[in-house]
Amino acid sequence: MNHIEVLTRYTANFIDELSKNGLTDIVISPGSRSTPLALTASEHKGIKEWIILDERSAAFFALGIAKETKRPVALICTSGTAAANYFPAIVEAYYSRVPLLVLTADRPHELRDVGAPQAIEQIKLYGDYVKWFHEMALPEATPNMLGYVRSKAGIAIYKAEEGNAGPVHLNFPLREPLHIDFSLDNIWGSENEKPFTSTFDGMKKLPDQQVQQLVDRLQRKKKGIIVCGPQINEHFAEAITRLAAKWGLPILADPLSQVRAGNHDKTQIIEGYDAILRSEAVREQLKPDFIIRFGAMPVSKPYLFYVKQHQHATQFIVENHAGYREPAGNRTEIIFADPILLCEDLIAASPGMDVDSHWLRTWQDMNQTAKKHLLSGSSNQVTEGEAVRGLMDVIPTNSSLYVGNSMAVRDVDTFFMTTDKHISILANRGANGIDGMISSGLGAATTGKPITLLLGDLSFFHDMNGLLASKQYKLNLTIVLINNNGGGIFSFLPQAKDPKHFEALFGTPVDIDFGQAITMYGGSHTVVTHEAELKDVLTTSYQELGLSVVEVKTERTENVEWHREKWQAIEQELLKKGE
Amino acid sequence: MNHIEVLTRYTANFIDELSKNGLTDIVISPGSRSTPLALTASEHKGIKEWIILDERSAAFFALGIAKETKRPVALICTSGTAAANYFPAIVEAYYSRVPLLVLTADRPHELRDVGAPQAIEQIKLYGDYVKWFHEMALPEATPNMLGYVRSKAGIAIYKAEEGNAGPVHLNFPLREPLHIDFSLDNIWGSENEKPFTSTFDGMKKLPDQQVQQLVDRLQRKKKGIIVCGPQINEHFAEAITRLAAKWGLPILADPLSQVRAGNHDKTQIIEGYDAILRSEAVREQLKPDFIIRFGAMPVSKPYLFYVKQHQHATQFIVENHAGYREPAGNRTEIIFADPILLCEDLIAASPGMDVDSHWLRTWQDMNQTAKKHLLSGSSNQVTEGEAVRGLMDVIPTNSSLYVGNSMAVRDVDTFFMTTDKHISILANRGANGIDGMISSGLGAATTGKPITLLLGDLSFFHDMNGLLASKQYKLNLTIVLINNNGGGIFSFLPQAKDPKHFEALFGTPVDIDFGQAITMYGGSHTVVTHEAELKDVLTTSYQELGLSVVEVKTERTENVEWHREKWQAIEQELLKKGE
Repeated sequence: MNHIEVLTRYTANFIDELSKNGLTDIVISPGSRSTPLALTASEHKGIKEWIILDERSAAFFALGIAKETKRPVALICTSGTAAANYFPAIVEAYYSRVPLLVLTADRPHELRDVGAPQAIEQIKLYGDYVKWFHEMALPEATPNMLGYVRSKAGIAIYKAEEGNAGPVHLNFPLREPLHIDFSLDNIWGSENEKPFTSTFDGMKKLPDQQVQQLVDRLQRKKKGIIVCGPQINEHFAEAITRLAAKWGLPILADPLSQVRAGNHDKTQIIEGYDAILRSEAVREQLKPDFIIRFGAMPVSKPYLFYVKQHQHATQFIVENHAGYREPAGNRTEIIFADPILLCEDLIAASPGMDVDSHWLRTWQDMNQTAKKHLLSGSSNQVTEGEAVRGLMDVIPTNSSLYVGNSMAVRDVDTFFMTTDKHISILANRGANGIDGMISSGLGAATTGKPITLLLGDLSFFHDMNGLLASKQYKLNLTIVLINNNGGGIFSFLPQAKDPKHFEALFGTPVDIDFGQAITMYGGSHTVVTHEAELKDVLTTSYQELGLSVVEVKTERTENVEWHREKWQAIEQELLKKGE
Repeated sequence: MNHIEVLTRYTANFIDELSKNGLTDIVISPGSRSTPLALTASEHKGIKEWIILDERSAAFFALGIAKETKRPVALICTSGTAAANYFPAIVEAYYSRVPLLVLTADRPHELRDVGAPQAIEQIKLYGDYVKWFHEMALPEATPNMLGYVRSKAGIAIYKAEEGNAGPVHLNFPLREPLHIDFSLDNIWGSENEKPFTSTFDGMKKLPDQQVQQLVDRLQRKKKGIIVCGPQINEHFAEAITRLAAKWGLPILADPLSQVRAGNHDKTQIIEGYDAILRSEAVREQLKPDFIIRFGAMPVSKPYLFYVKQHQHATQFIVENHAGYREPAGNRTEIIFADPILLCEDLIAASPGMDVDSHWLRTWQDMNQTAKKHLLSGSSNQVTEGEAVRGLMDVIPTNSSLYVGNSMAVRDVDTFFMTTDKHISILANRGANGIDGMISSGLGAATTGKPITLLLGDLSFFHDMNGLLASKQYKLNLTIVLINNNGGGIFSFLPQAKDPKHFEALFGTPVDIDFGQAITMYGGSHTVVTHEAELKDVLTTSYQELGLSVVEVKTERTENVEWHREKWQAIEQELLKKGE
């Protein structure tokens, strides 16, 4: 068998096995060394390939697809710094538990560490930020080695998805010539063939005895709260609201918990807790006996203060598989169990629960007060909060909102009220970077579901290269760009008081007309001033194809003032009622 | 001492010690956790700070300053993916031996691996791609710990510069509050104070006996060639041309060797070797007895073929400090010695050298033939080669040319003929990426020296965010943008024959009007058609301030044809003469 046939069979069997294990999308960045992988991925009928030039954007694009589909997505790039450009998205995927398969082409061993062009050490390139690394064998096409290459493909997909999902990395040493011969017979195996390696894996379920002990302990503690942090399972809302109803407890639901939106019972959901808990005095009034948290730590900083202020409350944290996410530093009982199974088990184990209805009603009343203030008033020049409020009004059901970090996710926390609409909320909260947001949003948009991306100007700037994909693939995406010409979040920090260095080091105004960039990539661009205007433009954008950017220009100092006024008004009314 | 005073003294002593060890430039990306480092860097009188939003661009900007100044440059960023965005430039700096100090802010230990926001594992974040990593102690301000922090600053600078230069990484755990108090007394130490830790380090010099043995062996081998690969020492040209004169040998000088330009003797320099060695038959005629190479492997692929074809020639490779850069796989004698010292020692040890003047003349004649063809003719629509030829004609003396990878550096190899002008040639040839080029060029431009950046459209696209720095800092930079709407180099590869996948996977046209991006960042933009027009526009650009982009639109297929015609004509004439 000649070199080209070996190379063809080796890579085709690998790519086919990815497909047989359910992989459907591969994001490719152009290069020479990766030719065999790129060609076979493009040729395979079961795989849709996306070509993204800038590897940093490519990796976030793959992340966006994987976030929206909740399935692994593969990346292919050539050797050298191409692979290094994936790093930010890989770190994000690792911490936000998103399955990615990173397939890097490499020089073969004899061209490594000898000063050959575009050759860098790629073994364990991403260090501890991938769940698994495997250096692939040089291509061989014996039946044994075709089994090997299929097996590694199947295992890679399993490893990316198992437990806390995350990125895995396979490095392919490839020798020249790098051609592929698609005229060879039977390079893909049979379509009806099962995967070479497939994996069945169980969920974690607490033993009945432990469930009963938990219920018995909690029965004696009346003032409990259920906290739902960021998590992606869309069936979780139904289970947790049934548990909350049974136990008569308030649910503090993070905007990324997928609990605020949908047609489950939402009467016990306290979405205004970020505003409520800003007051130290209010936090003191709301002393809990226990906290049971599902999902990651919520976005809300007041919630962190609340937990720290009540460090003697019994705290349970439920994690699906592994990980200790407890940044408050409190005493904690960690439960590793599937959250839906656990909710069902807890409900079954607590037939008659003694409910403190006053406790729940206090939270519900406070929530009404907070919402009243947050939803009232309207400024001449739309504020950041009003922009999010307007967006939440008109965002279509059965759509996803991809939220940027820094101010955007905090404004969504404040202004995303419970709704019957089905809206998934996605965000890159693994490492909370402002990078890669446009590509993440466009990746999510590949599914055809309507996607709105809400982000600030620095985040927009950081990934402007990502816009190329919207033009290349004519993807439908509505972007709400909150432009306060700089790092708005820093205005909330003590650094804002330093007049000498603040604007240069933290304000960092970009001062560019984003309209020019948007036009360059073939998008539509509208600047809006009023909330009503914003809603009109957004409503239209959801009926149009392609990229629509709706820009809201705000002022950083006024924004801080506006937020602080709202919070003060809420605090005053809550404390008055509590007297 | 309170927390703020401790933090202030710790970071101020660190920054001051960097300055006392000669550091002058720090590139800062905005963030909260890095506030103490950013503020003290901004406040220190001896340090110039540059604020660059996109950390990927920031790191390449620092690389550009360090390449041009040949001195370490520091980077400061906040925790999380900010630091991961540095990775491509760090990999490049590692392989191209550029000194960088990467200073990352981090959460303190109690906020690590607990799900705290924007906290990722940063210990050894860059793996093997930094020469040294040190996790800094939590800030303390005892005399002993202020000595520690100064000592680590001094050592970091030494480690970045020693031997083969490269990046080093210090990670700073920092607790809130993150304020700095500049009203405290004596936070910088005295201006007249010497560095706390300074280092003197020797160069490698071969023992006299080994030098003499080398000369004795080479005396018996007449047909030698001296090869000068990429290297940055501007004094090397003088030394190597004197050695070549003494030994009567041709010098094959890579465009990045700094040997083609300057007022040293250039009669023995064969700058046309890439064109000459494209013919296998010509390579056969030029069988060498020995090769002595200084610097990295040349850019030229025909040179690689030449070395492989003559694997029995004795090969010496001279490296300043360490590293085995021999990608041809030939038997090799590696000499670790300072190249200038070695040239002087070899000259002193070979008073009377038997010279084969026919050998030298053969190379010189071939070089004349190649140059005649390369410099002749003029197309209606300027070709990529003619664009580089035109650029080299008008580029001012005492300037630097920063060359992009892929086609740009290859065209410079072909068309940069020896000149008396003083021109430094810079390129990112550590990993040969197409990323970060605009930022690298702008970093070099901070020195005030006229800089021309030559690059292709994919490379321009990859780092468009880098253009923001030209607007922010009104840097003078002339960019020659060769726009063939895609990956021109792939048209030279066998992949070009695959009509089904080629354009999507390799051609990858971007199809955008770069003029819009350039205008957005306040640059001037001119599209030129003829070589004469190019020269006019370039000449004007060197007299103007700010960013000037001169765009040359070419066609990928025609470009391949044009190059191949030139090479064929050269081969035919060389073979005819050789008959």
